[in-house]
Amino acid sequence: RINPDRLWDSLMDMAKIGPGVAGGNNRQTLTDEDGEGRHLFQRWCEEAGMTMGVDQIGNMFATRPGEDPDALPVYMGSHLDTQPTGGKYDGVLGVLGALEAVRTMNDLGIRTKHPIVVVNWTNEEGTRFAPAMLASGVFAGRHTLDWAYDRVDAKGKRFGDELERIGWKGEEEVGARKMHALFELHIEQGPILEAEGKEIGVVTHGQGLRWIECTVTGKDSHTGSTPMPMRRNAGRGLALLTELVHEIAMKNQPGAVGAIGHIDVYPNSRNVIPGKVVFTVDFRSHLPEVLHAMEAEFYDRAPGLCEEIGVSLSTQVVGQFEPPAFDEGCVAKVRAAAERLGYSHMDIVSGAGHDACWINDLAPTAMVMCPCVDGLSHNEAEEISKDWAAAGTDVLLHAVLDAAEV
Amino acid sequence: RINPDRLWDSLMDMAKIGPGVAGGNNRQTLTDEDGEGRHLFQRWCEEAGMTMGVDQIGNMFATRPGEDPDALPVYMGSHLDTQPTGGKYDGVLGVLGALEAVRTMNDLGIRTKHPIVVVNWTNEEGTRFAPAMLASGVFAGRHTLDWAYDRVDAKGKRFGDELERIGWKGEEEVGARKMHALFELHIEQGPILEAEGKEIGVVTHGQGLRWIECTVTGKDSHTGSTPMPMRRNAGRGLALLTELVHEIAMKNQPGAVGAIGHIDVYPNSRNVIPGKVVFTVDFRSHLPEVLHAMEAEFYDRAPGLCEEIGVSLSTQVVGQFEPPAFDEGCVAKVRAAAERLGYSHMDIVSGAGHDACWINDLAPTAMVMCPCVDGLSHNEAEEISKDWAAAGTDVLLHAVLDAAEV
Ligand SMILES: NC(=O)NCCC(=O)O
Ligand SMILES: NC(=O)NCCC(=O)O
Repeated sequence: RINPDRLWDSLMDMAKIGPGVAGGNNRQTLTDEDGEGRHLFQRWCEEAGMTMGVDQIGNMFATRPGEDPDALPVYMGSHLDTQPTGGKYDGVLGVLGALEAVRTMNDLGIRTKHPIVVVNWTNEEGTRFAPAMLASGVFAGRHTLDWAYDRVDAKGKRFGDELERIGWKGEEEVGARKMHALFELHIEQGPILEAEGKEIGVVTHGQGLRWIECTVTGKDSHTGSTPMPMRRNAGRGLALLTELVHEIAMKNQPGAVGAIGHIDVYPNSRNVIPGKVVFTVDFRSHLPEVLHAMEAEFYDRAPGLCEEIGVSLSTQVVGQFEPPAFDEGCVAKVRAAAERLGYSHMDIVSGAGHDACWINDLAPTAMVMCPCVDGLSHNEAEEISKDWAAAGTDVLLHAVLDAAEV
Repeated sequence: RINPDRLWDSLMDMAKIGPGVAGGNNRQTLTDEDGEGRHLFQRWCEEAGMTMGVDQIGNMFATRPGEDPDALPVYMGSHLDTQPTGGKYDGVLGVLGALEAVRTMNDLGIRTKHPIVVVNWTNEEGTRFAPAMLASGVFAGRHTLDWAYDRVDAKGKRFGDELERIGWKGEEEVGARKMHALFELHIEQGPILEAEGKEIGVVTHGQGLRWIECTVTGKDSHTGSTPMPMRRNAGRGLALLTELVHEIAMKNQPGAVGAIGHIDVYPNSRNVIPGKVVFTVDFRSHLPEVLHAMEAEFYDRAPGLCEEIGVSLSTQVVGQFEPPAFDEGCVAKVRAAAERLGYSHMDIVSGAGHDACWINDLAPTAMVMCPCVDGLSHNEAEEISKDWAAAGTDVLLHAVLDAAEV
């Protein structure tokens, strides 16, 4: 069993870096705070006897050697970056839980045949630089490194420049590593485990996603002196598409969601009718046919709704993945670990995207989930109990030891 | 008659300060560019033999002495500040047209009984600091000076601090001046004069306005893992109220307008359901009963629409005025000047708020309007012809000479 207090202390220490305004965290990717969090994590890894490697996109890999020098390593980890108003556990539990698993192996003198690697993936959240899971996506060959470097944030800063600025651009080629298996522990971010009274979610599948960036163009003009019939109000385009997205998701319930989270209005002045609004639609489902039906209906109806009110729509996909199915062997190891340790568990579908979803293309992969209070995540009030964190980390430890062959 | 080329050259010289990105201007109030524009205007006034006074809110008053030292001055002017993506003429024509009128009096050696004052009012646009017409409002006793100083912009900067920073906080008590009359020349900002083929609009009435700042509060949570029935999406509140405002304005056509120009979304992240959206509703009509009916219907229906989708609404009025009727004597002077000079003209209602609307409470006031291309304003492509500018300025000159007694 892992040490729940040591795990919790590390979670609380990391949360001191990039505090939010309401008890959570704002440690967005490639900010100074992200850099500071990485240094702390590196120090902890070195104190646990691991050696750190960093690749050209800033992914961090801390290695604990195995008995067999030729055996491929077993990976575990998640991400340390957060939303602008994020919680203390989303991603962080997966990285520091993995670190705690290694500390526990050290305490107990456990040796494994396969080396063990604890990983922190760069820019999982995708809030500062779209898309989400950017660096694990490059690792998995979904995007090129140069394309990732060219992503820009809302202030026009390039991902590549910011990575260099915070000093975490390594030498290692991205994706050169081979893996025996990968396990990711993550909070559920949804309400199911808590509602069902289960301590462990055995993740069998993930969601698919489409991020459709929409630009509605009207004509900016005076809110007072422009007659109603002459208006081309891009804000109304946003309004109609907000409701369209909601309607499409509701129609495909259960198993489908949709919303608009990011909106920029131009020129954003009280007495100017918006001439342009840029926003991102987020559609998801774990069922490929539902995901495809939702996006098809959106593309079918959205341009006409805009045309009717005299504005125009252009769209661009800025994030996409198909629903993944995790490796049956690894999933079985997670389920067996929960069973063996006596934790209540159920099979579950991940309601969010995770780095493990990309790595699943490269190597046998699975995820462990623990509940979070009220299913709340991407909110500073995100909360878990120390017991839940410990149970999830215990299961992670045992699944990894199973794969790494004690 | 005024000198059209000299007027136009001054307009083009001023437009070089705070250029926009598409041929217009971004010279928002109390920015460095506003300060630079004020210095240029001051130099021009001094070259025309006037002496400058500045009050504690930065209003600038350039005086040309009259023959009778006891006679109250006749004022003319408007504002030099612009929208973030504003045109070269909104406000600026009224200030530089007034300057051109004085230059013409000088050329022709015209003396008046009453002194003449050319005024530049601070923060007419209200885009950086709400409400609009802030400094003329303090001058007219609608707001206190301290309240105005405490207005903050989107970055949290105080109006009072920014006024001091750019060096235009004067000594003179705000509103201490008494006026014989005031005339404001302004572009129409709407399509009526151009459509009717008239060179001059004789403004008999202004619009009333309500700026209702709305805060819709939901709960920020994950766009992927939050089940649809659990969502409290503040973005949907914005969508429903955008359409409500449009519906209310359309129902009260003609003579009523409504839109939402300013929208801030929190936390504004692609994978976070908006937990809070703050936006400002702009309702206007020149008919008091229509304005009151629109706002009553909004207050009646908006909270219920929000409640139905699980979000809450709070509102605050951040700008308001009742429709003003201008002084019949001054209006007659404008009409007579247009007639005498042989310009086609019509009576018109102002489709926007103006500093003259506040001053109308204190002294006999009227406005002169000239057409603008396609009725477009609050847009960098705002355009007028040199002939229109000259005609409006000629009428301003003659109405002012009439009031100031040659
Ligand atoms: N787990 C998580 O919140 N990942 C961010 C990417 C997503 O929006 O699903
Ligand atoms: N004239 C003008 O655009 N004034 C700004 C205040 C308003 O929105 O009417």
